[in-house]
Amino acid sequence: MNLEKLRPEKYLKYLNPTNLFAVKRTKEILSANPTIIPHREEAKEVIVTIYDYDASVIEEKKFSGITGCFKYKTSGRTSWINIDGLRKADVESVCNHFDIHSLVIEDILSINQRPKLDEADNSVFCLLNMLYYNEEKHSVEQEQISIILAKDVVISFQEDAHRDVFTSLREKLKAAHSKIRQRPADYLCYTLLDLIVDHYFVVMEKLSGRIEELEEEVTRGNNTRSLSHITQLRKELIVLKRNISPVRELVNGFLRTESDLIEDRHTKYFKDVYDHIVQAIDLSDNYRDVMVSLHDLHINNVNMKMNEVMKVMAIVTCLLAPATVIGGIFGMNFESIPWLHSPYGFFGAVIAMLAIPVWMLLMFRKRGWF
Amino acid sequence: MNLEKLRPEKYLKYLNPTNLFAVKRTKEILSANPTIIPHREEAKEVIVTIYDYDASVIEEKKFSGITGCFKYKTSGRTSWINIDGLRKADVESVCNHFDIHSLVIEDILSINQRPKLDEADNSVFCLLNMLYYNEEKHSVEQEQISIILAKDVVISFQEDAHRDVFTSLREKLKAAHSKIRQRPADYLCYTLLDLIVDHYFVVMEKLSGRIEELEEEVTRGNNTRSLSHITQLRKELIVLKRNISPVRELVNGFLRTESDLIEDRHTKYFKDVYDHIVQAIDLSDNYRDVMVSLHDLHINNVNMKMNEVMKVMAIVTCLLAPATVIGGIFGMNFESIPWLHSPYGFFGAVIAMLAIPVWMLLMFRKRGWF
Amino acid sequence: MNLEKLRPEKYLKYLNPTNLFAVKRTKEILSANPTIIPHREEAKEVIVTIYDYDASVIEEKKFSGITGCFKYKTSGRTSWINIDGLRKADVESVCNHFDIHSLVIEDILSINQRPKLDEADNSVFCLLNMLYYNEEKHSVEQEQISIILAKDVVISFQEDAHRDVFTSLREKLKAAHSKIRQRPADYLCYTLLDLIVDHYFVVMEKLSGRIEELEEEVTRGNNTRSLSHITQLRKELIVLKRNISPVRELVNGFLRTESDLIEDRHTKYFKDVYDHIVQAIDLSDNYRDVMVSLHDLHINNVNMKMNEVMKVMAIVTCLLAPATVIGGIFGMNFESIPWLHSPYGFFGAVIAMLAIPVWMLLMFRKRGWF
Amino acid sequence: MNLEKLRPEKYLKYLNPTNLFAVKRTKEILSANPTIIPHREEAKEVIVTIYDYDASVIEEKKFSGITGCFKYKTSGRTSWINIDGLRKADVESVCNHFDIHSLVIEDILSINQRPKLDEADNSVFCLLNMLYYNEEKHSVEQEQISIILAKDVVISFQEDAHRDVFTSLREKLKAAHSKIRQRPADYLCYTLLDLIVDHYFVVMEKLSGRIEELEEEVTRGNNTRSLSHITQLRKELIVLKRNISPVRELVNGFLRTESDLIEDRHTKYFKDVYDHIVQAIDLSDNYRDVMVSLHDLHINNVNMKMNEVMKVMAIVTCLLAPATVIGGIFGMNFESIPWLHSPYGFFGAVIAMLAIPVWMLLMFRKRGWF
Amino acid sequence: MNLEKLRPEKYLKYLNPTNLFAVKRTKEILSANPTIIPHREEAKEVIVTIYDYDASVIEEKKFSGITGCFKYKTSGRTSWINIDGLRKADVESVCNHFDIHSLVIEDILSINQRPKLDEADNSVFCLLNMLYYNEEKHSVEQEQISIILAKDVVISFQEDAHRDVFTSLREKLKAAHSKIRQRPADYLCYTLLDLIVDHYFVVMEKLSGRIEELEEEVTRGNNTRSLSHITQLRKELIVLKRNISPVRELVNGFLRTESDLIEDRHTKYFKDVYDHIVQAIDLSDNYRDVMVSLHDLHINNVNMKMNEVMKVMAIVTCLLAPATVIGGIFGMNFESIPWLHSPYGFFGAVIAMLAIPVWMLLMFRKRGWF
Repeated sequence: MNLEKLRPEKYLKYLNPTNLFAVKRTKEILSANPTIIPHREEAKEVIVTIYDYDASVIEEKKFSGITGCFKYKTSGRTSWINIDGLRKADVESVCNHFDIHSLVIEDILSINQRPKLDEADNSVFCLLNMLYYNEEKHSVEQEQISIILAKDVVISFQEDAHRDVFTSLREKLKAAHSKIRQRPADYLCYTLLDLIVDHYFVVMEKLSGRIEELEEEVTRGNNTRSLSHITQLRKELIVLKRNISPVRELVNGFLRTESDLIEDRHTKYFKDVYDHIVQAIDLSDNYRDVMVSLHDLHINNVNMKMNEVMKVMAIVTCLLAPATVIGGIFGMNFESIPWLHSPYGFFGAVIAMLAIPVWMLLMFRKRGWF
Repeated sequence: MNLEKLRPEKYLKYLNPTNLFAVKRTKEILSANPTIIPHREEAKEVIVTIYDYDASVIEEKKFSGITGCFKYKTSGRTSWINIDGLRKADVESVCNHFDIHSLVIEDILSINQRPKLDEADNSVFCLLNMLYYNEEKHSVEQEQISIILAKDVVISFQEDAHRDVFTSLREKLKAAHSKIRQRPADYLCYTLLDLIVDHYFVVMEKLSGRIEELEEEVTRGNNTRSLSHITQLRKELIVLKRNISPVRELVNGFLRTESDLIEDRHTKYFKDVYDHIVQAIDLSDNYRDVMVSLHDLHINNVNMKMNEVMKVMAIVTCLLAPATVIGGIFGMNFESIPWLHSPYGFFGAVIAMLAIPVWMLLMFRKRGWF
Repeated sequence: MNLEKLRPEKYLKYLNPTNLFAVKRTKEILSANPTIIPHREEAKEVIVTIYDYDASVIEEKKFSGITGCFKYKTSGRTSWINIDGLRKADVESVCNHFDIHSLVIEDILSINQRPKLDEADNSVFCLLNMLYYNEEKHSVEQEQISIILAKDVVISFQEDAHRDVFTSLREKLKAAHSKIRQRPADYLCYTLLDLIVDHYFVVMEKLSGRIEELEEEVTRGNNTRSLSHITQLRKELIVLKRNISPVRELVNGFLRTESDLIEDRHTKYFKDVYDHIVQAIDLSDNYRDVMVSLHDLHINNVNMKMNEVMKVMAIVTCLLAPATVIGGIFGMNFESIPWLHSPYGFFGAVIAMLAIPVWMLLMFRKRGWF
Repeated sequence: MNLEKLRPEKYLKYLNPTNLFAVKRTKEILSANPTIIPHREEAKEVIVTIYDYDASVIEEKKFSGITGCFKYKTSGRTSWINIDGLRKADVESVCNHFDIHSLVIEDILSINQRPKLDEADNSVFCLLNMLYYNEEKHSVEQEQISIILAKDVVISFQEDAHRDVFTSLREKLKAAHSKIRQRPADYLCYTLLDLIVDHYFVVMEKLSGRIEELEEEVTRGNNTRSLSHITQLRKELIVLKRNISPVRELVNGFLRTESDLIEDRHTKYFKDVYDHIVQAIDLSDNYRDVMVSLHDLHINNVNMKMNEVMKVMAIVTCLLAPATVIGGIFGMNFESIPWLHSPYGFFGAVIAMLAIPVWMLLMFRKRGWF
Repeated sequence: MNLEKLRPEKYLKYLNPTNLFAVKRTKEILSANPTIIPHREEAKEVIVTIYDYDASVIEEKKFSGITGCFKYKTSGRTSWINIDGLRKADVESVCNHFDIHSLVIEDILSINQRPKLDEADNSVFCLLNMLYYNEEKHSVEQEQISIILAKDVVISFQEDAHRDVFTSLREKLKAAHSKIRQRPADYLCYTLLDLIVDHYFVVMEKLSGRIEELEEEVTRGNNTRSLSHITQLRKELIVLKRNISPVRELVNGFLRTESDLIEDRHTKYFKDVYDHIVQAIDLSDNYRDVMVSLHDLHINNVNMKMNEVMKVMAIVTCLLAPATVIGGIFGMNFESIPWLHSPYGFFGAVIAMLAIPVWMLLMFRKRGWF
């Protein structure tokens, strides 16, 4: 018997690499947000990108210093100032220059903030997370983005200089006749939100593919790590839910705002984002439901397989017991045992040893026991 | 022993055809809606059907080109323009002709949209799904329908040219004295909604029949695929719930609208649709509850059957153990063993071998163990 | 061994009569309400009963034709027109005579409607179900009742001519000094509602008795059909909940109405009905909770019984194993085996065969294993 | 083996006394409130106690007839009329004398009413339950109390003459300088509510003690009745929840009332009661959560104990199987079996019989199987 | 066999120290709040600390008597009076001096109060708990803090003189240019709240670390106390939830207040605290979800390990059964048994004894049973 295969330590060892990641992942998911002691590391590089445009002209600039963007406060055109990489001093100097409240600075620098919207007299601030799907670890990654909408200016702060979801926007900006060039800063702000929310669907599409994979794995029933995978995916769904749920309220804030910065004719666009985020939330609830029934299915499959094995073992053991008894009967050392001296005695006994289990087997089958 | 019957690979193979469908189904259910990258295929054919009517006259026309419907914008009568098959260019040209907002065009062309209602100055737009029941796959199929209510015009966009739920409406339209001929476009819009919602009940009736079938299957207890069926049906209930839940809010939008397009005397009709959709939602919750208890019942039946088998095996094995011991006692090779030389010794031993299990059996029965 | 008793087909056969009813019941509970295709059978008989009264006079009449009630539209007194048995033509002619909206006619004739309230200028319409408890099938039966409150007239439509919950009302009406004779039609309407809601409590009292019975059955633990009974009762609770939950909103409608048909001084009475229905809903939630823990208790009892049996079997088998080994040792055919020739050898071996299990037994008991 | 201990009938018999109480308790908890057929028994004795006081004087009187209290309607001082024991005629005569609405009379006489608040022009009526903890049966007992606040009068109706929660109030009333003597009737009404709600905490303290006891019992794991105790306690928590939940709304009614009977400066006191009742509801939810995890823990302990036993049995049986085989090998009657004639053969075989299980044991331990 | 290891009493004994703490903990968590019988012990020492400051000056004083703080009622500067240690007489004299309502005094002295906010004309009172994490017992400890905001004065009452969460505030107060020195008393009040709420995140960070530890423990699967740890941690999460949930409403009270004591420009700060507390509540729900799936994982691991053991035992027993039968066959004492006299008979039998299990083993493996 290959006992090797049965050693729990062994298969647990196989599980460990995944699980150690899983444990670390739990830590990441559950870590809290003490703004009072911010542990955010200073970004290694800060890249400032400016798109300064109106219907006729667009100017694109890239700085590595922060001060270059200051003059766009009053350029007469609409400016998108995108800052990749967060450094305390830089965030503070930009915000002070553009008259942003100090609490907003704290929020921008915080870690693991809940998506939120804050309105002030001269600006609207919102903070949310862009989500990406890590194909390797099957995990949902988040990158915090802070957007400040002020008079003719949109300032966005991102954590990571090397990725965002705004590629399509940059192309549209360069196209002279695109709608975005005709419209003021709030439409730009809407476009940013829209792209972020639409990317949630891309992540969910990947997650749905992952659920499909897991369902196939569970249905095939030959992977001992399925439960571990299911547990991890459930955690990713927590991350997803936590990131998208509060965005509903955030977008609703844009709908209900009375700020002059949002034109009435653009409400329809924010309403559209609102519909999308509501759909994403609904869908993520469906994901959860499907995961629960996947978990049930897995447990059921494992039990069914185990039960089959135990049943066969019990039946085999049971079927052989009568033969042992018959062997015992004629193995007794009594002087006078019938048939002992008959030449057919042995064969009679052996036939009985075979006949009884066969008869039992037929009885069991008749009762539908296997 | 028919080990064949016990091979899990084998019954899992039986399950696979269903399950592969089930997995694909999961993918369909969970797939998200990234409007930013619409994957909608262009329809192969586009059929435009016009019903242009007032109380006295009705004109019915069918075009395969889209431009034929343009003149009904101002026909002086009420027009129902039904467009089967979605092509980007066609949808855009129709919407532009009838002054529909570009966001609505995006929604019409999107896939897996959540049911929604949008009001503009000159039109009311709603998008929802017609549901059909696929008798073969026992699945709920959805077809997106977009309805635009404008001044004297109702435009509806359907995906599939070959089926819808409006047959009875077409007949009523042809009858000169039917109520619908006496009333303006909003009543037509109400009728469309009403027929869609009423068809939900037809689908639910089928689902209820399917649940009944499954309950009988589970009660009979002789189908190893029951769990798979239950799991699939629970997914279909997710589809149902997701499609009908947001319709409540949609219809409520018609009730609360202040648009001039909806006459006050027609509110009562929309209220009636509202009551129906609320009932459908309530009922679908009941379906869910029943499915949960069906799942419990199935698990319980499977366990009970397994337990019975294990119990019998354990009892048989246990009953035969004393006989083995007695056989062992008199099979020992000691020189002086009592009764060995007695002519009744053997029969005494055999009688003991029978008597002890019988006595045990009586004891067990007295304790109600089987 | 009485294998008969263990055949699952057999006990499932016992279950079947109940379960076939249960399956049919599921169908009844889940069947939907497609008003578009009403399957309602025409009533075999229609009985119209009139109570036309004021503080001083009461006139009681019974017709089998529908037209007899038409003159009570303007009798100058308060009239209660109760129509038992629903026929399409009759309902339509009555409603047309009393100026009731055609949607209301549809509702009256529909099947499995959700309780609802509709207000019009000249009337208030409500539809709900009377509940009865079927002692034989332990099921909750429902009969739809539609009540129309118009100026000085209350019209009620019932499905079944042979039972309702208004017996006590009829007696009070005949008593000249009863409060109901002093008051206008809305008080009559309140009384009808009050009697219907109070009868819910009668049904719940019966259900509570049934729960008590089941709990005793489960506690005694000797009924294999308990789970089936529990499952059925949970379905009945779904019926109960579905019928009483929407009535809360319905009665609330009477409280918030601004219709002239309800006098302000009678609001207090509707508030009383409201309190009762809220209590009924609360109570039905308690029923649900108790059923859940009853289900848990049942599962636990079944498992505990099974476990006891398996434990005893395992212990007996285990205790006899050492004896088999000892028998085997001295049954070996080696030439030189110690004690074989000793006269006490056999007894020593047998004593060992007894002593080891006894010692094991003591060890097991010391560990509290049985 | 002490089979006695394993008879399920036997331990179920032990359970029965508790369970019969439990079943009766279920009936009590679930019984409904059909006001239409009040089964309330007439009280055997009715005791009327009057406290008629102002800041300077207090008069305390006790009557067994009801009419004695009538003159306190207009005593010029504040009166608390407490009536212990409910008789239909008495309640009606008191209420009629004090101009209380007939619906209130019905409520006072009803059984198992849900706590409620009713306002009229000249009075505020509230009905709720005082809770007591029965130390013997570990059950929550309820006694209905109805409080009527009218101009300068508070009338309270209690069911049981022999206990209430107002002892401390009586003492304060007698103290001339107590705050309650300085204030009008609504402060008295507040004090009654406050004492009732504060007594809920006393009951909850006892329940929390009971939960603690059960947790210890479950942790020790030596009580077969634990599940029964847990089930009963969960029922008591249903009683608790049902009694305290609606009181929140009741007290909120006092906060929002516009009745002249409640002075504005006393709102703060009702707010205090409100805070307490909210806390009680929160806490009772915690109790529920703890009971659920207690139930889990119990099931887990039972399973763990059972599993341990089965594991040991399976291991012992398994370890002895090789010895049986070896015994069988050398017990065969072949003519030429090696070692049979060797003087060390027997010892070799016996050593093998011991060595194999020991080796297996070591293997099992290495794998951490026990 | 090391039976020692299997004794449930023994491992339960190991569990007991933890569990006894756990039981006591349950008592602490569930204990109610009967303000009517306050059991609060008088503090052993009372320390009063005064910070009296404006933008230019700060005075720090420490008293052990209570009266020293009275003069700061009208110091002309902003005063923070922090009182560590609660004595009934002291609280009353302070509150009376500062014109605080007597109900507030009761609240300050109460035990296990639910966090609450009370507004009066001249003051705002709030009561909540500071949370600490006890690293040794892995428990969440709470300390009640009452904050009274009056004109230019903030009074805070703490239970424990030796710890609080305001260290950083004290440092900021001493810094002349810190924002807090420039602002009135409501900003001080905000700062206190902010520090308390921020410390919740510190506690949650620790809890998240503890969850991570437990997950590793469960994944490794070698700790029999895991369930006990999980159960305890779930209780701590109840404590956490109960303490932070009502704080949301409390802070919301500050946002909606119309008291003159809170300046409009400071609303933004309270909004920030509000966002933090909402995030904390969301996060604590995530903790709960993760704990549930951790519990599932643990149960699953325990079952899997148990199942593996039982499967191996059943397989070994089953594999050895045929050998026993063969031994029995050739151990029978019939006169004529074939092969008995053949010199290869014995070896043939032994080879059959080995070959059959090997063949069975191969069959089992082919079926994927281990």
